[in-house]
Amino acid sequence: MTRHVNIAVIGTGRMGSVHARNLARQIPAANLAAVCDIRLEVAQAVADELGVTRVVRDYHELLADKSIEAVLIATNTDTHAFIVNDVAAAGKHIFCEKPIALDLADVDGALAAVEKHGVKFQVGFNRRFDKSLKRVHDIVASGEIGRPCILRIAARDPEPPPVEYARTSGGMFLDMTIHDFDMARFQVGEIEEVYAIGNVLVAPEYAAIGDLDTNIVSLKFANGALGVIDNSRQAVYGYDQRLEVFCSNGVALAENESENTVIKASKDGYLSARLPYFFMDRYAACYVEEVRQFIECVRDDKPVPVGGKDGRAAVVLGYAAWKSYRENRPVKVSEIG
Amino acid sequence: MTRHVNIAVIGTGRMGSVHARNLARQIPAANLAAVCDIRLEVAQAVADELGVTRVVRDYHELLADKSIEAVLIATNTDTHAFIVNDVAAAGKHIFCEKPIALDLADVDGALAAVEKHGVKFQVGFNRRFDKSLKRVHDIVASGEIGRPCILRIAARDPEPPPVEYARTSGGMFLDMTIHDFDMARFQVGEIEEVYAIGNVLVAPEYAAIGDLDTNIVSLKFANGALGVIDNSRQAVYGYDQRLEVFCSNGVALAENESENTVIKASKDGYLSARLPYFFMDRYAACYVEEVRQFIECVRDDKPVPVGGKDGRAAVVLGYAAWKSYRENRPVKVSEIG
Amino acid sequence: MTRHVNIAVIGTGRMGSVHARNLARQIPAANLAAVCDIRLEVAQAVADELGVTRVVRDYHELLADKSIEAVLIATNTDTHAFIVNDVAAAGKHIFCEKPIALDLADVDGALAAVEKHGVKFQVGFNRRFDKSLKRVHDIVASGEIGRPCILRIAARDPEPPPVEYARTSGGMFLDMTIHDFDMARFQVGEIEEVYAIGNVLVAPEYAAIGDLDTNIVSLKFANGALGVIDNSRQAVYGYDQRLEVFCSNGVALAENESENTVIKASKDGYLSARLPYFFMDRYAACYVEEVRQFIECVRDDKPVPVGGKDGRAAVVLGYAAWKSYRENRPVKVSEIG
Amino acid sequence: MTRHVNIAVIGTGRMGSVHARNLARQIPAANLAAVCDIRLEVAQAVADELGVTRVVRDYHELLADKSIEAVLIATNTDTHAFIVNDVAAAGKHIFCEKPIALDLADVDGALAAVEKHGVKFQVGFNRRFDKSLKRVHDIVASGEIGRPCILRIAARDPEPPPVEYARTSGGMFLDMTIHDFDMARFQVGEIEEVYAIGNVLVAPEYAAIGDLDTNIVSLKFANGALGVIDNSRQAVYGYDQRLEVFCSNGVALAENESENTVIKASKDGYLSARLPYFFMDRYAACYVEEVRQFIECVRDDKPVPVGGKDGRAAVVLGYAAWKSYRENRPVKVSEIG
Repeated sequence: MTRHVNIAVIGTGRMGSVHARNLARQIPAANLAAVCDIRLEVAQAVADELGVTRVVRDYHELLADKSIEAVLIATNTDTHAFIVNDVAAAGKHIFCEKPIALDLADVDGALAAVEKHGVKFQVGFNRRFDKSLKRVHDIVASGEIGRPCILRIAARDPEPPPVEYARTSGGMFLDMTIHDFDMARFQVGEIEEVYAIGNVLVAPEYAAIGDLDTNIVSLKFANGALGVIDNSRQAVYGYDQRLEVFCSNGVALAENESENTVIKASKDGYLSARLPYFFMDRYAACYVEEVRQFIECVRDDKPVPVGGKDGRAAVVLGYAAWKSYRENRPVKVSEIG
Repeated sequence: MTRHVNIAVIGTGRMGSVHARNLARQIPAANLAAVCDIRLEVAQAVADELGVTRVVRDYHELLADKSIEAVLIATNTDTHAFIVNDVAAAGKHIFCEKPIALDLADVDGALAAVEKHGVKFQVGFNRRFDKSLKRVHDIVASGEIGRPCILRIAARDPEPPPVEYARTSGGMFLDMTIHDFDMARFQVGEIEEVYAIGNVLVAPEYAAIGDLDTNIVSLKFANGALGVIDNSRQAVYGYDQRLEVFCSNGVALAENESENTVIKASKDGYLSARLPYFFMDRYAACYVEEVRQFIECVRDDKPVPVGGKDGRAAVVLGYAAWKSYRENRPVKVSEIG
Repeated sequence: MTRHVNIAVIGTGRMGSVHARNLARQIPAANLAAVCDIRLEVAQAVADELGVTRVVRDYHELLADKSIEAVLIATNTDTHAFIVNDVAAAGKHIFCEKPIALDLADVDGALAAVEKHGVKFQVGFNRRFDKSLKRVHDIVASGEIGRPCILRIAARDPEPPPVEYARTSGGMFLDMTIHDFDMARFQVGEIEEVYAIGNVLVAPEYAAIGDLDTNIVSLKFANGALGVIDNSRQAVYGYDQRLEVFCSNGVALAENESENTVIKASKDGYLSARLPYFFMDRYAACYVEEVRQFIECVRDDKPVPVGGKDGRAAVVLGYAAWKSYRENRPVKVSEIG
Repeated sequence: MTRHVNIAVIGTGRMGSVHARNLARQIPAANLAAVCDIRLEVAQAVADELGVTRVVRDYHELLADKSIEAVLIATNTDTHAFIVNDVAAAGKHIFCEKPIALDLADVDGALAAVEKHGVKFQVGFNRRFDKSLKRVHDIVASGEIGRPCILRIAARDPEPPPVEYARTSGGMFLDMTIHDFDMARFQVGEIEEVYAIGNVLVAPEYAAIGDLDTNIVSLKFANGALGVIDNSRQAVYGYDQRLEVFCSNGVALAENESENTVIKASKDGYLSARLPYFFMDRYAACYVEEVRQFIECVRDDKPVPVGGKDGRAAVVLGYAAWKSYRENRPVKVSEIG
């Protein structure tokens, strides 16, 4: 019989509970051995729903349990780094939600612990597992349409998150563009320099905290390709997620998914559905797939598909974008460190 | 706390096991109390996967169990009618896969039992629960684009089923067009007359058993609208499922869903993904939704969304189409009975 | 220097004036030598606009002019046949607007004259020259997607013509479906049997004259393929012209053209442009192309792309459809003659 | 009777001959009074084709002709400025192909002459007259989807022009991006600052002359909106011309036009047509419309839709982009002058 990987989920809030459900129901190779949340009743509710018998408030209780091979960390960002340190020291493999940390020293400390203890470490860049974005990657990587020349990403949220969220998120380049930085690296390769412009155009409360709601970031890739990302916190027609990689012999584009396939035509024209509003709907399958692959890598001792280096690079790019925006000049990634 | 409906699944083959999984994992209001299959090991495997403790080979064992309120029947078509009779007599509500039976007397017997014992009876016309097809229905039913004039359905399977399947399926009008007859009734209303043409153009083995692989059926609706269904057993580009209701002030169309949203453009043109090949992928969400609604109807004592009358009507239309095809003339539905 | 073909246009109403303009401005191989209309002032206005010096009221004046090699007939349908007879007897090549005539005896008389005098004779089935419909034809004819199985045509006018027009048009199967019958023959081949249903659903005044505003015609082709045409006189979203040929190894579809390529997305969804409303806009390029090819066939003595047989066949199919509709039974084309 | 505007075309090469044909055949309010080219035989051929009687080699011959009210200049760019000076001094209205000149002093001299002599002056930014791009403008200008936040333009040529062309064209930002700068101003308003990156990725011969084949330009608009243009000299799938204006309450997008509307589906997926390859095909209708409007402005003494200020601004932006690229820093438009 196939071996199951015993895994615990630490942090069972919005994202963690999705992972817990996926582990319990949709990833046969996994065994959800425990759930943990400092709000014990939240963890208990998830456990009840999924028939998980072990529920703890303090993740330290799980560290000594030899039967638990892997841990999925979905707590608040500011706790990721020290939990990673502890879990790595306990010799367990780690799937960590992004970003690893907002402080680069914390990121480096966590990655050093991972390396020292030789555990696997995957970062939750879920979009790499989207069937369409993955397909673009595969077309480009195959070389069948030549070398990459221009990467274009439009990534726009349906509505701004509460400004309190943005207060601790690291701001737009770190809470939103970070996904696109990772996607850009996934599709085209390393980025050497960025130039960022931004403004507050739809959510004035963001100006008061020094954040943005609209931005455009130009990219220079190490391989000579150019790129551009645009972001907005408010696309009223839904969660707009488009990407194209224009190459010397063609282009590969990932278009949006719609809520449904219906078109209503009348005197006014052809009306089709808006986009899904909720990122968890749009990328639901990715959350399963990224963890499914992590579990298989643990089970079969293979390298993980998205590692610590990727997690760090996206944070560095976020800082480079902020520096570029603030100083209104192109910033080399090497300036950040 | 919300009441759960205890339900048993009889028949845990391809379709039944999907229903069992959905009941166990995705329909919180349901409690999958038992699974049953004459191939006990098949039922046992499903039970193991889902943590169901009661597994039986003979469905009669379930009839006396008062805790079981409802039964989902997903056995071979030729067993539906007598199981319905027994289950109805036991006072349990029924969700029955389509068709109810191929013999109209059997259908009528089953429906009489349902009526006599006052149980709920839902037929598994899953497509009515597709978000896009449902949306077309809602647009048309709202009257916002006027009265229905022309219904057009293209429904084509990716590849012919084994000819053995077709040998007992009732043939193309009963194994394939039956879905479209139900959809036509759902969208536009009662059908009064059909005219069917057909041929064997792609799968010559079907000719030997007197069946078809290609057909077109014209429809006259009671409300004066006209309709047409076309079917093929072999659409190499995938499971082609399109529908439009053309009305006096507009049209509502449900387009196909694609495997992904990627477009690759090159000197040859723009290439986008083919369609899903497997009907269970295309309509996966419908299988959950139809049973979810059934469970709620049982729990809240509401009328079911697709009933015995609908199940019967689609079978009658299948026979009318065969008669029309064989006699090469329009056939009134009233000729079948 | 390349030889020019001297051609006269007889009938300079809506359609004839378009042909005259195309001949004068967009078909370098043609020389528009004369225009003719029984309303002399109408012909004169066209002549003034285009710098044509010869203007006549009676087409007989042109018959003796040896410099005129070809004639384009765009008069009222009921005059086509006798003009064809006269022009053919004068030894001039003929491009004749469709239909040749509504009376089959007239059609046959005209075609006999054409044959007797050995002149070229092209019928104005313009849609065969549409770049998209032609491309579908070429894909299908190449065999690259296998044998044709199902032809589907949706052809719907934006709004009903005045009922007076329909009074002398031969009715819906002869004024509207006739185009689709020709297209069906162009795409798939000879038709052996038709079955037509119809109704008056949007323009009640049509009922009073025994005509229809909505119809569906099923087709059996000689090669075993099946087909269906649907027509409406009122598609409020524009001139709806779609066609697909479903084959054993794929499908070729011609989608609609839109007024523009703009999409406006808002909370309500994605709104794109309606279709062109006017058939002359939709098929503008075809009117040039069909006559351009005719001129070249005359100049280079090649066979014309759409001949008298095609013109006759479409009329016969129109009568077969009417007979089928009235007797509510499938009608073999051979029943009409 | 409506007054006709007598106009002469100076320069009857590729672009000038198109304008001459449009004036002669498709703009009823115009009278093409003369054609002029230093290659007299080229002008003569156009005159012969169009029935124009006056043909001159030297444009000075036209200046004293009081019957000529307007002149269309389609000569080489380096001759525009002095011809404008002379024609303006002669009191004739001017339609001038873009760019006015590559030297800003020449531009300013020409515009000063125009102002001094009080003649109308329109620059040939044809894309503003495209039905789709115009429709986007109208949607945005109406305010119905809120304030502009992000402008995105992808503009890619099918294949690089001969490098000799680029040697005198001013380079990529002045021969290609110049169109997009004008479009950006048309859609969103004045631009204050640009940042340009570029590379040679597909046509190495461009590196040798210090030009680019790929670029991305970020824009800051005076109204706070952000923008980005990407360009390539080689899009093998055709002439790629897409634009979107993302606003606070929606987005308006102009999609590409295709060569035809045919889709061929097979096992490999859905293949649709590539884009038109030739810019004159893509924008054919614009060339008519821009001159039609110019003629009407002359006839009715109205202000022209695209004036000298627009022509100058696009050139300035081209220089700003070059400066930004060369110094790798954002450049304010005010730095150019």
